[in-house]
Amino acid sequence: MWRADILTLYPEMFPGPLGASLSGDALARGLWSLTTHQIRDHGRGRHRAVDDTPAGGGPGMVIRADVLGEALDAVSVADDPRPRLYMSPRGRRLDQGFVRELAGGPGAVMLCGRFEGIDERVIAGRDLIEVSIGDYVLSGGELAAMVMLDACVRLLPGVMGASASGEEESFESGLLEYPHYTRPREWEGRAIPDILLSGDHGAIARWRREQALRVTRERRPDLRAASDDQPE
Amino acid sequence: MWRADILTLYPEMFPGPLGASLSGDALARGLWSLTTHQIRDHGRGRHRAVDDTPAGGGPGMVIRADVLGEALDAVSVADDPRPRLYMSPRGRRLDQGFVRELAGGPGAVMLCGRFEGIDERVIAGRDLIEVSIGDYVLSGGELAAMVMLDACVRLLPGVMGASASGEEESFESGLLEYPHYTRPREWEGRAIPDILLSGDHGAIARWRREQALRVTRERRPDLRAASDDQPE
Repeated sequence: MWRADILTLYPEMFPGPLGASLSGDALARGLWSLTTHQIRDHGRGRHRAVDDTPAGGGPGMVIRADVLGEALDAVSVADDPRPRLYMSPRGRRLDQGFVRELAGGPGAVMLCGRFEGIDERVIAGRDLIEVSIGDYVLSGGELAAMVMLDACVRLLPGVMGASASGEEESFESGLLEYPHYTRPREWEGRAIPDILLSGDHGAIARWRREQALRVTRERRPDLRAASDDQPE
Repeated sequence: MWRADILTLYPEMFPGPLGASLSGDALARGLWSLTTHQIRDHGRGRHRAVDDTPAGGGPGMVIRADVLGEALDAVSVADDPRPRLYMSPRGRRLDQGFVRELAGGPGAVMLCGRFEGIDERVIAGRDLIEVSIGDYVLSGGELAAMVMLDACVRLLPGVMGASASGEEESFESGLLEYPHYTRPREWEGRAIPDILLSGDHGAIARWRREQALRVTRERRPDLRAASDDQPE
């Protein structure tokens, strides 16, 4: 079973959206596990303080290295084969290749920060891999962890079922996906392209490939360039 | 008030993680509003069907243009000044500049897809702006919408309060953030850099700037290049 352990100051946020639909169904069927851990349980003093002011001054609060070190040690033993991820905008950017890599492994230990950030020393001291879901700043790592989990879980064996459509979707061939149409045949004067109604499966496959190329070229030439470097 | 309307097949997922911490507090204080709308209310027939098989064949199901058109019209009138966003990996990539732009506006109408996707015609027919939170595939648009909302809400006036630290964080100057440290002074043989304890605010500011440049150069030379083009 693919196992996720989450360290957070907001364990009540989980499973949240991951408890419904595809990932929630897979959770209920035991195809993956999700365990949350309250960082504050390792806080200092009567008030279980987890953070302190930044060394050198400045706004906000920083989560302490000793607190996080203890919290991580309580969750992930030395021979835990799972990567320890810290969700952070400074991290390696999550993409579909990285998702496949994680989904193909035993799971993940994920640390969610809050406030100004975490003490840098725990990143090196506990071999944390910093992962970013995109070039924007969130109020904490919890939503980033959920995004990463949702992306991974849908690729686990048995989750998408026999009608799995993973192979034709965006990024799986280095391209964005072709446009979709369904009934009605005409809507507000807009018709489904004739070729999709032709029954000619070869022509339809070629049209879809051309459309995927066109959309990628127009919107994301950076992906197209990467795709050009790969044998088809 | 910044107003968000969400069209989804899973309204029960909201506010979810957005109901806690910074965004939840801001929601409770009336600094923004969140209204969900069940797409299925506009479904067809006794079973309120919202999807159908893709024209031209293939796996999965596609959400109908007529159903989505009606659902959008019920939420967003013709003179609604808010952008209508469709969360999709084929979209414009969300970044901190785009977040600031959205946060500075009146709010957003956000359509969350599921299954294989939505009928392409409703994108043009209702002027939807496709937005992607990153180069990976999720099981639906709901988590992507939450990420976008969380990123926007924290920038709304009054949300982060007087100790707002938005100006020094990642991306705000085209750079990743410098490393943070806090007590204890030494942890597992790792010390806080001396300069941060020197009390010399000018030297600390220079060191942080150098560190932000170093981290960005090492991890994200693409951001550094963008930053080099801007006057400092």
